[in-house]
Amino acid sequence: VNGGTQPESGSGPGKGRLPVTFLSDFGYEDEFAGVCRIVIERRCPGARVIDVTHDIPPGDVRRGALALHEAVSYSPPAVHLAVVDPGVGTPRRAVAVAAGGHFLVGPDNGLLALAVEAAGRPVKAFEVSRSPVRLEPVSRTFHGRDLFSPVAAALASGVLPADLGDPVDPDSLEGIGLPAAVVEPDRITAHVLYADRFGNLVLDAGAPEIAGSFLQGAGPGSGVRVETGQGTTSDARFGVTFGDAAEGGAVLFADSSGRLSLALNRGDAADRFALGRDDTITISPA
Amino acid sequence: VNGGTQPESGSGPGKGRLPVTFLSDFGYEDEFAGVCRIVIERRCPGARVIDVTHDIPPGDVRRGALALHEAVSYSPPAVHLAVVDPGVGTPRRAVAVAAGGHFLVGPDNGLLALAVEAAGRPVKAFEVSRSPVRLEPVSRTFHGRDLFSPVAAALASGVLPADLGDPVDPDSLEGIGLPAAVVEPDRITAHVLYADRFGNLVLDAGAPEIAGSFLQGAGPGSGVRVETGQGTTSDARFGVTFGDAAEGGAVLFADSSGRLSLALNRGDAADRFALGRDDTITISPA
Amino acid sequence: VNGGTQPESGSGPGKGRLPVTFLSDFGYEDEFAGVCRIVIERRCPGARVIDVTHDIPPGDVRRGALALHEAVSYSPPAVHLAVVDPGVGTPRRAVAVAAGGHFLVGPDNGLLALAVEAAGRPVKAFEVSRSPVRLEPVSRTFHGRDLFSPVAAALASGVLPADLGDPVDPDSLEGIGLPAAVVEPDRITAHVLYADRFGNLVLDAGAPEIAGSFLQGAGPGSGVRVETGQGTTSDARFGVTFGDAAEGGAVLFADSSGRLSLALNRGDAADRFALGRDDTITISPA
Repeated sequence: VNGGTQPESGSGPGKGRLPVTFLSDFGYEDEFAGVCRIVIERRCPGARVIDVTHDIPPGDVRRGALALHEAVSYSPPAVHLAVVDPGVGTPRRAVAVAAGGHFLVGPDNGLLALAVEAAGRPVKAFEVSRSPVRLEPVSRTFHGRDLFSPVAAALASGVLPADLGDPVDPDSLEGIGLPAAVVEPDRITAHVLYADRFGNLVLDAGAPEIAGSFLQGAGPGSGVRVETGQGTTSDARFGVTFGDAAEGGAVLFADSSGRLSLALNRGDAADRFALGRDDTITISPA
Repeated sequence: VNGGTQPESGSGPGKGRLPVTFLSDFGYEDEFAGVCRIVIERRCPGARVIDVTHDIPPGDVRRGALALHEAVSYSPPAVHLAVVDPGVGTPRRAVAVAAGGHFLVGPDNGLLALAVEAAGRPVKAFEVSRSPVRLEPVSRTFHGRDLFSPVAAALASGVLPADLGDPVDPDSLEGIGLPAAVVEPDRITAHVLYADRFGNLVLDAGAPEIAGSFLQGAGPGSGVRVETGQGTTSDARFGVTFGDAAEGGAVLFADSSGRLSLALNRGDAADRFALGRDDTITISPA
Repeated sequence: VNGGTQPESGSGPGKGRLPVTFLSDFGYEDEFAGVCRIVIERRCPGARVIDVTHDIPPGDVRRGALALHEAVSYSPPAVHLAVVDPGVGTPRRAVAVAAGGHFLVGPDNGLLALAVEAAGRPVKAFEVSRSPVRLEPVSRTFHGRDLFSPVAAALASGVLPADLGDPVDPDSLEGIGLPAAVVEPDRITAHVLYADRFGNLVLDAGAPEIAGSFLQGAGPGSGVRVETGQGTTSDARFGVTFGDAAEGGAVLFADSSGRLSLALNRGDAADRFALGRDDTITISPA
């Protein structure tokens, strides 16, 4: 049996410990996420691991950051383990961040940035690449198993982050770049952040952009025009739920995370409009 | 951190609480199912959530109902959270149903119908759209997070369903339509309910149809003829397991849920016969 | 509610019980893995089930054996439930194996072989097809639900394996055949064991083959030539992590399980080279 000469942390199964949420791009077809769960159980027996998702597109740090933001926004105090780490093995930092009663553990590549903001203050950060709880030898390509899972398990079992690494300036943590919708008097030029499982196109516009645009005055169910490609326009309803359009019809609405989204009622908008990440959608009055 | 001005339910981690099974069409690529799990943990710390599946085809209420039926049939007393909800945000009801020691929570669109039958009697139903435990503001498109998860968590922590909504007549709950195989003296005309992961074609015929047809007299391993499309027929074995046909050969058998299924030994019947949901298969003696 | 006239095992939720890891080829789209989890909860209330993966390709016993080996290598003492079982319903044996503080449960088709070795000694094996804890009637096609899950739950709750079946000679357990790389003075002829989620091509060569080949003398970052098909060669770097090649470049490295792997830095090698299971890769100095 590999690794692990470190003393086991924690005081055994029982109360008082934090749950561990777990997000990654490890997918479901290999044993990667499973082995991480097993390492957490080994280091923190009885740990409650709550999967957020492991199907973030490989290396898509931005999609991971957006998903983690949603998870942390609804979470009780917890350890949030997040691994989307295309730079694993390079000198990028590995961090544990304490923020507003939450702990976040992962690579310092922007993945944690939106979630740290959602978690609140105060914020303290620690570089954990050489953490005493790591599994030796640390592989160069699977820090999820050898570094991040042991650190998360230690935090879940009550170890203080200051005992897991060296303090770093929270302001030095990597941010994450998001595109920005452009609002003009009679037009919103937005970008697709991602298409979700249902084919809903999630855009880089939310309550402020809606409030500052012609949509502010638009009644529920009013018609809008969406340009989804060079010269390709479609009619849509500005609504609050899918049923505000006829079956198969397009609806533009503020989704459950507050973002403007383009969907089809009982259909797949990403498929219909052949749009995905970073594509542009222009919205104007009908 | 969003939502949740409601008092937290339950008496903390410990014994006496019910496990929560969780089925949805949320998929695995987004954070939807994960955020629901997080809300359950927040409202019922230490809750044991058991995933049934989250990959029900988007909006396929019938497939969800069939899967939930299997889950409940093998379950100890539990809360069964089920969300396949293409009508979210429309006036369809949201319900919690107590049946035979189980609780079922989800949209009233037929999703729960087969499972309620499996759970047994007595049956009581409650409309929970305005439940006091809901997360405010309730989004119009993600009742899984804002309504159904909090209701399931409350039931898991011991809150009575009568405290979560208003009673409704159990007989008014939506049913689910299933196709019906036609049994004639020398022929069964069946329909594909769905193809499973292995490509097995699960049909709308079970023990009664087998008993009432020519298959009743057929010995194990006897030959049958299957017509899988206009004029396309194949030979199959009527057996009890995949190995009753030669490798790559077709076998017709009563599967682990009691339904007649068409499979290939170490192969994918859905792929081979190019069949799926609602397609017709005609079975006759060889 | 189906099955289960057996007395429930175990002493209720609490401490002292083993976690259950769970690996299968059941996939995520059906309720198969979920129903197994539910049966475990029913037989061992409060059981901690840790999913390894359920997306082993259907019937791919070798891929299952390799994944299970990794899981067990990092696991604390646990029950390891593994079901990749294309011969279900045929006379293949069903076994529970005690090895070095671990228990392994599954079909005797080679699936457990590598994990049993990793778990250590002493090894005892039991045939459990007629186990008293099985769910009656045992289906012919879903032993995961009716046989293996109840056996795993019983072991997790403290039942001794000798009470679950009849002893069999551990040396009679099925092995698993793996291809073998051929090392020549200036060439390694290796085979693809599988492509992982990231498109990394995992090869049948590890530390011994590296040590015995020209790669032993190769410095980090040195160039190698890989032949990935009849007459198709590419340049690659021999490194330790993806970043040792330029973006999009090929890197050959010992992966986190110690196996030689061919990857692209921020790319998908399986896709680029159009290679998969059992294909040959020839590696020579640049």
